[in-house]
Amino acid sequence: MNGAESLMRTLADAGIEVCFGNPGTTELKLVGALDTEPRMRGVLALFEGVVTGAADGYARMAGKPAATMLHLGPGLGHGLSNLHNARRANSPMVNIVGDHPTHHKSYDPPLESDLDTVARSLGGPIRRPANVAGVSQDAVSAIADALEPPGQIATLIMPADVSWSDGVAADGDGDRPMVLARPVSTVKPAVVKRIAEVLRGGDETALIIGGPAGRAAGLCAASRIAAATGARVFLELHSSRVEHGAGLPSFPHLGMFPERVLHQLDGVRHVIVAGTPVPMAFFAYPDKPSCLVPEGARAHVLAEVGEDATEALTALAGLVAPDRQPEVNEPGRPAMPTGPLTITTWPAVIGALLPENAIVVDETISSGAGLHAAVAGAPRHDMLQPCGGAMGEGMPLAVGAAIAAPHRPVVVLEADGCAVYTLSALWTQARERLNITNVILNNRSYATLRDEWEHLGTDQSDPHSNPLLDLGHPDLDFAALARGFGVAASRATTAEELAEQFNQAIAEPGPHLIEAVIPPIR
Amino acid sequence: MNGAESLMRTLADAGIEVCFGNPGTTELKLVGALDTEPRMRGVLALFEGVVTGAADGYARMAGKPAATMLHLGPGLGHGLSNLHNARRANSPMVNIVGDHPTHHKSYDPPLESDLDTVARSLGGPIRRPANVAGVSQDAVSAIADALEPPGQIATLIMPADVSWSDGVAADGDGDRPMVLARPVSTVKPAVVKRIAEVLRGGDETALIIGGPAGRAAGLCAASRIAAATGARVFLELHSSRVEHGAGLPSFPHLGMFPERVLHQLDGVRHVIVAGTPVPMAFFAYPDKPSCLVPEGARAHVLAEVGEDATEALTALAGLVAPDRQPEVNEPGRPAMPTGPLTITTWPAVIGALLPENAIVVDETISSGAGLHAAVAGAPRHDMLQPCGGAMGEGMPLAVGAAIAAPHRPVVVLEADGCAVYTLSALWTQARERLNITNVILNNRSYATLRDEWEHLGTDQSDPHSNPLLDLGHPDLDFAALARGFGVAASRATTAEELAEQFNQAIAEPGPHLIEAVIPPIR
Repeated sequence: MNGAESLMRTLADAGIEVCFGNPGTTELKLVGALDTEPRMRGVLALFEGVVTGAADGYARMAGKPAATMLHLGPGLGHGLSNLHNARRANSPMVNIVGDHPTHHKSYDPPLESDLDTVARSLGGPIRRPANVAGVSQDAVSAIADALEPPGQIATLIMPADVSWSDGVAADGDGDRPMVLARPVSTVKPAVVKRIAEVLRGGDETALIIGGPAGRAAGLCAASRIAAATGARVFLELHSSRVEHGAGLPSFPHLGMFPERVLHQLDGVRHVIVAGTPVPMAFFAYPDKPSCLVPEGARAHVLAEVGEDATEALTALAGLVAPDRQPEVNEPGRPAMPTGPLTITTWPAVIGALLPENAIVVDETISSGAGLHAAVAGAPRHDMLQPCGGAMGEGMPLAVGAAIAAPHRPVVVLEADGCAVYTLSALWTQARERLNITNVILNNRSYATLRDEWEHLGTDQSDPHSNPLLDLGHPDLDFAALARGFGVAASRATTAEELAEQFNQAIAEPGPHLIEAVIPPIR
Repeated sequence: MNGAESLMRTLADAGIEVCFGNPGTTELKLVGALDTEPRMRGVLALFEGVVTGAADGYARMAGKPAATMLHLGPGLGHGLSNLHNARRANSPMVNIVGDHPTHHKSYDPPLESDLDTVARSLGGPIRRPANVAGVSQDAVSAIADALEPPGQIATLIMPADVSWSDGVAADGDGDRPMVLARPVSTVKPAVVKRIAEVLRGGDETALIIGGPAGRAAGLCAASRIAAATGARVFLELHSSRVEHGAGLPSFPHLGMFPERVLHQLDGVRHVIVAGTPVPMAFFAYPDKPSCLVPEGARAHVLAEVGEDATEALTALAGLVAPDRQPEVNEPGRPAMPTGPLTITTWPAVIGALLPENAIVVDETISSGAGLHAAVAGAPRHDMLQPCGGAMGEGMPLAVGAAIAAPHRPVVVLEADGCAVYTLSALWTQARERLNITNVILNNRSYATLRDEWEHLGTDQSDPHSNPLLDLGHPDLDFAALARGFGVAASRATTAEELAEQFNQAIAEPGPHLIEAVIPPIR
């Protein structure tokens, strides 16, 4: 057995089932080994940002890591933006990067680059087996690294000569099936008690929850706490995975702009965080604070990122709200709108028609303000958002989610500017016949940058005439682009058209794209 | 004047005329400043790999750096692959990356990442002005860094607060127009004399030339040397810019695979390099050498990368071939082929029809073996290739080349697998109305990986059935993709169709895409 086969067997033994990849020559032995390991599914993407975004989406829905396969430093570079998003989502991932053999690197061939330094920028551990005998142990360690709370990007660099060298007995060397288990870091009871005292003090309090606390158990505990104490509950700005819809509590997300967050937190004396950092501004602005704990308020950490926020919230609810029930959304859909699509009508169409048990990927940025309210009474669903602020993860996240949860419909709500970064995700959706409905909200501008422009007080010119903020000229034709990647596509300009096309996309198997044309924001 | 304005004015004073960008919030003041600096052209791309590849192509044709504008660590990450290619092409570039203010970074907001470490992986100097007063000097230094032979990626990190802060007088502070001059590092006469002795020794000798020696003067000197001494002349594997066609000498490129190179160099006792490293294998293979200087041969460096190889070759020709003339290609075109497109007929069509004074971008990989011979007698042209082996630079290079040389037709010959990485380059081509004819050679596979598969002796399975090497299922429809980005497109399956469509694309202004369907290699 060669090193590549040893790696794939070890990953499969550990329960890793999917490898998203865009391989090159240095990974060909890995491609061959993947092909002969029946427990591992290889999923090809045409661009590495799709690979890494899909691995993020998979981890969020499967609760365990996928592997990736990337080609040298340039492949890792292309994958870096969505690795950043995955890192911010605390998604576990075993990021496998092929490399030249060590003896070959010393000649500085054209594709040689400072791969280790790029990998180091991700903050997670980096392993590089020195020989075939070390592959299996390094792979086991990389998986353990990935699962380290709150979840890490573990990078395993596989030199090509280690992949191609033989030397591991095919049925032994102590390899054995492992069970992937994510270690849990429990919050101390004394911390929970101290936070209970804060809540019992009767001051205005905000409770901000994030990470795994966005699942039903955490949401219900937070709702009980709110019902008993009057605390205002918020979700962090962007959530890796929130369970949402009828029968579940629903909380607003913290806003993007500092003044919005300070308005949300106006008057509070205490800010309690569970599974998310203390609130800070997404971007900095002249004369505005970075830390968004209001002046005079104190911040309290119930659960650090990586600690079991759900258990802590449940324990806290046991102390302050023992007899309370969570307040949950009644089933209910918005009335089906008519007429032109706008930033208020498109979310209502989705809310009216969202299918049962959906996974919703939300990368709507400036166009999505009405989305969460519109689907609050729809059938229960999971909502995934890019967490690191790097644009272009929506459609890749959907690929990973659909592969992790093949029997659930996936709906992507995607801003036009974001969509272009990783458009070839559509090809992987088509090849894998994934049940994904991509709705592209085309307002023909980097509208979020125009918002930011007003915010920064950039007075040099009208942002609407600035060529670097304009996605028109020429207009992108997303339906044509989708068809080019083998995905059925249509265009909607009215609520009626969107409704008809959305219903059809959900009813038919395989991926679809709907270009929803909405007016530019002025 | 704020820091952003100070930067743009300094760049313009230094003669930098173009900034390729994909900005975000942290760069908005730079966007505003660019808009008010009439000497600087801002070119928007929808993906950072297009930004950096275009800046590479611009530098090759303009002979001076462009600026880029990238958004934080994720933007730099997306740009990294073509920055790698630009580094290998020794293209000067002033790579401007916006960052959060330093005070804001300490809060670790979502888009914070280890930007400095990623930038460090490029090997070039990194500057970060601490305040607005330091911007102009850091920009001047970054330009000087970029021009340092052989050409570098100089990264200038602009914290948003430095961009937005006022503090530079609008008409002064010692700023003054500079003239961009690339310093030249001259080869010592003693080195040239020593190499002349080698050539006079009468042993079989190979002369491998690269970098700026690919221009007419270097080629002519090399041809004179070959005529007088019998030395075999080769171009390096991938050239940043070669002048080619009727009236110029033409030399074969070194091959990709080690055995090909060893065949090319078979029997030589001396390998002389000028402007390129000693030949090494592109990839490593089991039991094959990395260093491709044949056993028993000696390597000699006439000009290191970054030294003036053209001057050294000219001096060498003066010593060993004072009375010789270069041997140049006679004008002549291949006969126009008929029938289905194949890897032999498509290059003949291009050779038959290449317009005057063209810039040809060659990212054909496995499909392009016949290209250089087919255009050898065509009207004089420049030939650009990605130099770092990272796929997906062809169409971005064309963007930069077309902006640097607006009155020349640009022809991109692009492999299908490569095209997908940076497809949105088409949108920038359309927006800027660039005269670019993109010919996509669609064989529906990563054919180069199938070649490599055979080469590596990967015997696990038939590469033609391996899903990770197959670009079909579904087939990419490049004509639809082009139309989605606003570029006129057509599809050719015969030589006659390609000829008609190519002539039309050259005749009409603006960009065109022709999908040339060729059979999969078996």
